[in-house]
Amino acid sequence: MAKTLTKKLTINGGRLYAALKDLGKVGAYKDENSGLVGVNRLALTEKEGEGRRLVIKWFKEAGLKVVVDKIGNVYAKREGQDDDLPPLLLGSHIDSVPTAGIFDGCLGVLGALEVVRTLNDHKVATRRPLVIGFFTEEEGCRFGTDMLGSATATGRLKLADAYQIKDRDGLTVRGELEKIGFLGKTELGHIKPRAYMECHIEQGPILRHKGLDIGVVTGVQAISWRELTILGKSAHAGTTPMSFRKDAGVAASRINVKLREMIASGRYGHEMRATMGSWKVNPGMVNIVPNKVICSIDLRNPSDAFMKKVESELDSFIKVVEKEEGVKIEWRSTAKTPLVPFDESVQQLIADTADSLGLSHERILSGAGHDAQEWSHVCPTAMVFVPGEYDGISHNPREFSAERQCTDGVNVLLNASLAFLND
Amino acid sequence: MAKTLTKKLTINGGRLYAALKDLGKVGAYKDENSGLVGVNRLALTEKEGEGRRLVIKWFKEAGLKVVVDKIGNVYAKREGQDDDLPPLLLGSHIDSVPTAGIFDGCLGVLGALEVVRTLNDHKVATRRPLVIGFFTEEEGCRFGTDMLGSATATGRLKLADAYQIKDRDGLTVRGELEKIGFLGKTELGHIKPRAYMECHIEQGPILRHKGLDIGVVTGVQAISWRELTILGKSAHAGTTPMSFRKDAGVAASRINVKLREMIASGRYGHEMRATMGSWKVNPGMVNIVPNKVICSIDLRNPSDAFMKKVESELDSFIKVVEKEEGVKIEWRSTAKTPLVPFDESVQQLIADTADSLGLSHERILSGAGHDAQEWSHVCPTAMVFVPGEYDGISHNPREFSAERQCTDGVNVLLNASLAFLND
Repeated sequence: MAKTLTKKLTINGGRLYAALKDLGKVGAYKDENSGLVGVNRLALTEKEGEGRRLVIKWFKEAGLKVVVDKIGNVYAKREGQDDDLPPLLLGSHIDSVPTAGIFDGCLGVLGALEVVRTLNDHKVATRRPLVIGFFTEEEGCRFGTDMLGSATATGRLKLADAYQIKDRDGLTVRGELEKIGFLGKTELGHIKPRAYMECHIEQGPILRHKGLDIGVVTGVQAISWRELTILGKSAHAGTTPMSFRKDAGVAASRINVKLREMIASGRYGHEMRATMGSWKVNPGMVNIVPNKVICSIDLRNPSDAFMKKVESELDSFIKVVEKEEGVKIEWRSTAKTPLVPFDESVQQLIADTADSLGLSHERILSGAGHDAQEWSHVCPTAMVFVPGEYDGISHNPREFSAERQCTDGVNVLLNASLAFLND
Repeated sequence: MAKTLTKKLTINGGRLYAALKDLGKVGAYKDENSGLVGVNRLALTEKEGEGRRLVIKWFKEAGLKVVVDKIGNVYAKREGQDDDLPPLLLGSHIDSVPTAGIFDGCLGVLGALEVVRTLNDHKVATRRPLVIGFFTEEEGCRFGTDMLGSATATGRLKLADAYQIKDRDGLTVRGELEKIGFLGKTELGHIKPRAYMECHIEQGPILRHKGLDIGVVTGVQAISWRELTILGKSAHAGTTPMSFRKDAGVAASRINVKLREMIASGRYGHEMRATMGSWKVNPGMVNIVPNKVICSIDLRNPSDAFMKKVESELDSFIKVVEKEEGVKIEWRSTAKTPLVPFDESVQQLIADTADSLGLSHERILSGAGHDAQEWSHVCPTAMVFVPGEYDGISHNPREFSAERQCTDGVNVLLNASLAFLND
């Protein structure tokens, strides 16, 4: 498949970086802790709608034909000479966490746009069509289910179920799609891609610490999200003896501390991660013992076996806490994916392309979930990672990859794409 | 002082209980956990304003003259034959926590009203005037400072400072007093009471477990409230290695679990209590390491020495957490009162009155703060406790004292009051 091009194309890094900065202005806010400017563009909010319309405007200016599917995913097509061939799909997302930088997701979407702009600049016609996709609610921050759009497009989630998912205010995915004008008509699965590639920031420290230009992503580690509902009993904080209490906040705290201890034990490998990120404590008053806590647990592990082990031991500890604290703990799984391995041939193409561009690289497993893991179920898939500064911090306004780093990643995406587009 | 009355007066328990139920309708809500009807009448909200107006209507119907002071405390006076004598003050509060029952505070206010109604029924003229007071924001749930009104009236808080205290939405005490029409004109300290008495539910299990009718309250245990602000660093929950994290949620959890362990050690006596009741976790997303937690700590102890010890050891542990978790923890004191002993002669009067009515009683230290502790700084003060069912649960819709229990307490209040009113 991967026929070697004698002449390499290179993108316009300045143009790519300017686009990232321009999109980053949509939903920009001043972070009170750091004083930095961050991005808050939660899925299907007014601000995200504004971002969608800006990117679509750019797509159309680049001559692409845009459609929106029934879950709000946006696809922009550049025609191929043999336009009925399965297209190459490049994509990612433009929704953000509420405390984001400008790179997460956007690099994949605007990087793909830069690929098209470069092909246009050089008047390169390709045999196969190229489609850029950006997918609804990748972050899962608003509706609690990550990769919502790509998982629905590729069949893991049913459309009817996805439509009914509610945010904290009880607003549904369907209603919010309609509100921002992105309840599209194109059928799910309207394209069967030849392959899927995605360029993304690493969101971790490894590439930067090793001084590498490119990460060739081998897959996505196992992810498990739970939402716990802990029911205790509200009581007066001054008069209720400790032995009479059913403190839902203490129960949640014990689980959080226990997860930390479990990881420190090394029993689940050395890359186990756990986070209790979302907390809602009722009634939330200084002098009332909490009667109810709704909180989340985010577990990650490169090994399915270790993940199974940590979940089972967590289950046991939850029972201990129920008994010792006199609370009732219910939980539901809000996301659960095993280790997703990427296609070996696409990985090799990315590695070869990096070599041909003189860029250093290494295979790396993704710590975060990505749209690519959903598309990997329907076509050969892999990802290109670029390093980030400050230990690769992400989901934080400090998130930063330099123009050079972004340019390297998208040059790999461009030249690996050409191999597919002309095969 | 305490001259023995040959004939005891008794209140109308049915009328008292009906008044409690009627006031309990103002701010009533259906509790989603228990299915019970609770009360949510936070200080200086529209609902509390409605409650104030209802009680004032009852005061006026009983012939009382009502004034409102500059911090919104309401005083209703029944004339004495020698009306210039320092009055007896009976009082409590009608604001509530957001998950309250109908008794906390209201029993003291409506009990005092029932005392007046009974005196009126029997056309009893008294030498000394009787004043009923109810005081602004006793709970501290909205503005974070409990006994706000009585503390300002008796000089512990300055009026200018009290006015500036803000709720979570940044609304000030002064502005909210004005909004509900209770920014009064009467000067603080306009009355110098001969004595202060307050009838209140115990809010704890002791009287009920011992089968006692009445608690003669010896004072209020030491109380210390803190608001902690824990600053960590937001980061991606999937990609950020545990060793790179500064998780404000883990820091708060560790402190909460440690408080529990400290109490279990018995090093601070066997009546030490600690509660982390209020939690605000930012950004509060499943896949983001929390960068900021604002939480409360409520400490109580009958011994000032033990309280000092627990606070000092908590300070040390906060430093440990700061170092081990890489977070910064700032805290401010939002309430701090030492053990407040009540007047021995007033306690004795209450005990003698209970005896004369054939009611069983015991001395008891209050676990909760009360307006009485503020008035105890300006005049002889003590309290009458009545038992509560369900281990005396309070700050919960399940809070319940039977008509008989309430009636017994107010009969003690009435007859002890007569001793003062005619001395």
